[in-house]
Amino acid sequence: MSQPLRLGIAGLGTVGIGVVKIIQRQADLLAKRAGREIEIVAVSARTRDKDRGVRLNAYDWEDDPVTLAQRADIDVFVELMGGADGPAKAATEAAISSGKDVVTANKAMLALHGQQLATAAEAKDRVIRFEAAVAGGIPVIKALGEGLAGNEIERVVGVMNGTCNFILTQMESTGSSYQEIFDQAAALGYLEADPTLDVGGIDAAHKLALLASVAFGTKVAFDDVQIEGIERISIEDITLAADMGFRIKLLGVAQMSGRGLEQRMSPCLVPANSPLGQLENAMNMVVLEGNSVGQIVLRGAGAGEGPTASAVMGDVMDIARGMRLATFGQPAKTLADARPATTSIPAPYYLRMKLLDKPGALAKIATALGAAGISIDRMRQYGHTDPSAPVLIVTHKTSPSAISDAIEGMKEIDVMVDEPVAIRIETV
Amino acid sequence: MSQPLRLGIAGLGTVGIGVVKIIQRQADLLAKRAGREIEIVAVSARTRDKDRGVRLNAYDWEDDPVTLAQRADIDVFVELMGGADGPAKAATEAAISSGKDVVTANKAMLALHGQQLATAAEAKDRVIRFEAAVAGGIPVIKALGEGLAGNEIERVVGVMNGTCNFILTQMESTGSSYQEIFDQAAALGYLEADPTLDVGGIDAAHKLALLASVAFGTKVAFDDVQIEGIERISIEDITLAADMGFRIKLLGVAQMSGRGLEQRMSPCLVPANSPLGQLENAMNMVVLEGNSVGQIVLRGAGAGEGPTASAVMGDVMDIARGMRLATFGQPAKTLADARPATTSIPAPYYLRMKLLDKPGALAKIATALGAAGISIDRMRQYGHTDPSAPVLIVTHKTSPSAISDAIEGMKEIDVMVDEPVAIRIETV
Repeated sequence: MSQPLRLGIAGLGTVGIGVVKIIQRQADLLAKRAGREIEIVAVSARTRDKDRGVRLNAYDWEDDPVTLAQRADIDVFVELMGGADGPAKAATEAAISSGKDVVTANKAMLALHGQQLATAAEAKDRVIRFEAAVAGGIPVIKALGEGLAGNEIERVVGVMNGTCNFILTQMESTGSSYQEIFDQAAALGYLEADPTLDVGGIDAAHKLALLASVAFGTKVAFDDVQIEGIERISIEDITLAADMGFRIKLLGVAQMSGRGLEQRMSPCLVPANSPLGQLENAMNMVVLEGNSVGQIVLRGAGAGEGPTASAVMGDVMDIARGMRLATFGQPAKTLADARPATTSIPAPYYLRMKLLDKPGALAKIATALGAAGISIDRMRQYGHTDPSAPVLIVTHKTSPSAISDAIEGMKEIDVMVDEPVAIRIETV
Repeated sequence: MSQPLRLGIAGLGTVGIGVVKIIQRQADLLAKRAGREIEIVAVSARTRDKDRGVRLNAYDWEDDPVTLAQRADIDVFVELMGGADGPAKAATEAAISSGKDVVTANKAMLALHGQQLATAAEAKDRVIRFEAAVAGGIPVIKALGEGLAGNEIERVVGVMNGTCNFILTQMESTGSSYQEIFDQAAALGYLEADPTLDVGGIDAAHKLALLASVAFGTKVAFDDVQIEGIERISIEDITLAADMGFRIKLLGVAQMSGRGLEQRMSPCLVPANSPLGQLENAMNMVVLEGNSVGQIVLRGAGAGEGPTASAVMGDVMDIARGMRLATFGQPAKTLADARPATTSIPAPYYLRMKLLDKPGALAKIATALGAAGISIDRMRQYGHTDPSAPVLIVTHKTSPSAISDAIEGMKEIDVMVDEPVAIRIETV
């Protein structure tokens, strides 16, 4: 058996403790699989005196994660502190410059500084692995970057924020408002300290930008992700979408075409009977589409101690086994600049509006859509007790700009109550 | 850039040609990702003069795959001939003994000779990779053996034969008999030359035995797989199971417990609203359960040119990138002998019977079940025009032997028409 692989773990929150537990609980199993022992040498966290439910006294303690990262007696720096900058980035840079491999769950840091960190690591012949940063326990970075390495990747679609999916599916199953379920999620501890990271789509957009880099061989381009959160999704839209055979998901889509690279994280309708449509509660799902493999669907827990620690350990085991791969699948210096698509690929849209119940009202809407070049696939007007009638339209494929034009045109229509709601329908 | 990785491909059927096409179509993409070119040096197949729709004249031709496997100018022998023994095995052995790595899609060969071949490869410091042998394009061997390497695997469940899933879902959607759909599948070319490999469950059992080895660190134990095909599944069972909220799947289950290793490939009921229950047509799905990650579900095409070639290329790319792993995830000599479970883990069962419509008939059945220690979860008697009534029972968890006892006991019952049908319900 080879020398043990020696870890320094910075960050002893849920995931860090999960990693410690795995290594303590099944050291023999890991050693048998890796051909060497996996050994924790030292740990670091903000507070030392805190009962974390595991024995840590066999490990050296470092107050400063940078000092931990530089220790000569570790091989791999396991960064589980989080935060795009600050101590996480400083310690990761220190680890790289002192010749360590890095395993991290830090999607924000890599979404913002991935290119710089990967370049630095490769200059030192070191790797950064980040399976735990995307979709929790689902080995999607591995599936995409290794398993499907023979494919030209066409599209990556996914639900990558369990909290948002929890909120949306709970709204549907209970009929409660967004705010009611948001408050419940907050009480359950499901939300980040800054909840806009979750419900604003930013956390999921970080993940999407990392997936896009691996999928398309482009530099991480988080700033190019079009981000829209779920805050505007009403229970009415969820109910009416269901009536049309759809469910609303916070959907990430990364797609390469002649238009360039499109990266969107936004609420979309998906067919209720599709794998994505059937995804309940806090689960994650990523759909990978390649020119040879067709469509691969991966589903699992997107967060939590066990699943995320499992992903960290997958990366640690790869390094222990000598399986080394450039951070984004190919050397950072060979990654292309992402040319952002200026407009989205056409798609059908869901349009909800309220019309005064007057003769010719529907005709005026249909005319406005026609004027914008949008044709109607399905239309439903619902019964109502107040003077305005809810009307739902599913369009044929059209461009986002045509939808904007149509909505602009509808503002002139005297029968329109409130502004129409438009949500893209993603075909998956 | 490093030296090209030089391939010799034996077998130019659907999958072999798919591999050639990928390498011809996107050589630059592969080279960029691997950091070196992927080059086909020589090919071999039974017939040379045959239009296969791709240009092969840039490659050397070998009539004998063994000669191909031994060529000094190849690094990797890609075995896509199939067959557990004969030329495939001879050529694989020749490749190993002349120091080549091997990539194969040959489930039968590895299910029967995997231990011997892996041992031989490791003695030469070579690898055998077989992602394409299990579940087509789904990178399940990689997910299980690498991505989840930090987990103690608890159970692997899957639908791994697309033809059987096609037959079962077509029976349900059309209401046709097994024989009718079997004949259609044959006409569509979906069946192996020997169809019992598909419908008899043997092909899927080969795959299950390979997954079990990777999951549990045990020697491949194909002979221990309990195999039952789908031939006895009637349209009546499919319809009645659906009425109870289930669908029938040819389900592979590998599970390690105190009883030992259980490997079953047999028709089972699964909840209709579960991911497995929703799997349509020729798709494959594998569910992986680990003690940290929880449940991961992988879905994709289980066969066909593109998906299977994608899996082959994933393995080739790993080798090109220097990512080398022992065949079954750890050295073959460290794999444990699988201790087969002598009895299955208890499960609920579906029981269908026909009873003469006489007073006390149901009571007699209930009594027979009670005598075998089986308690009833749900029971339905259906309307009928002939003198016998269809009766469905879903039991609480019980052992297979109790079910056998109960069926034996029911034979004595005078109101019973035909023998009851019993199918296990797998909770996934």
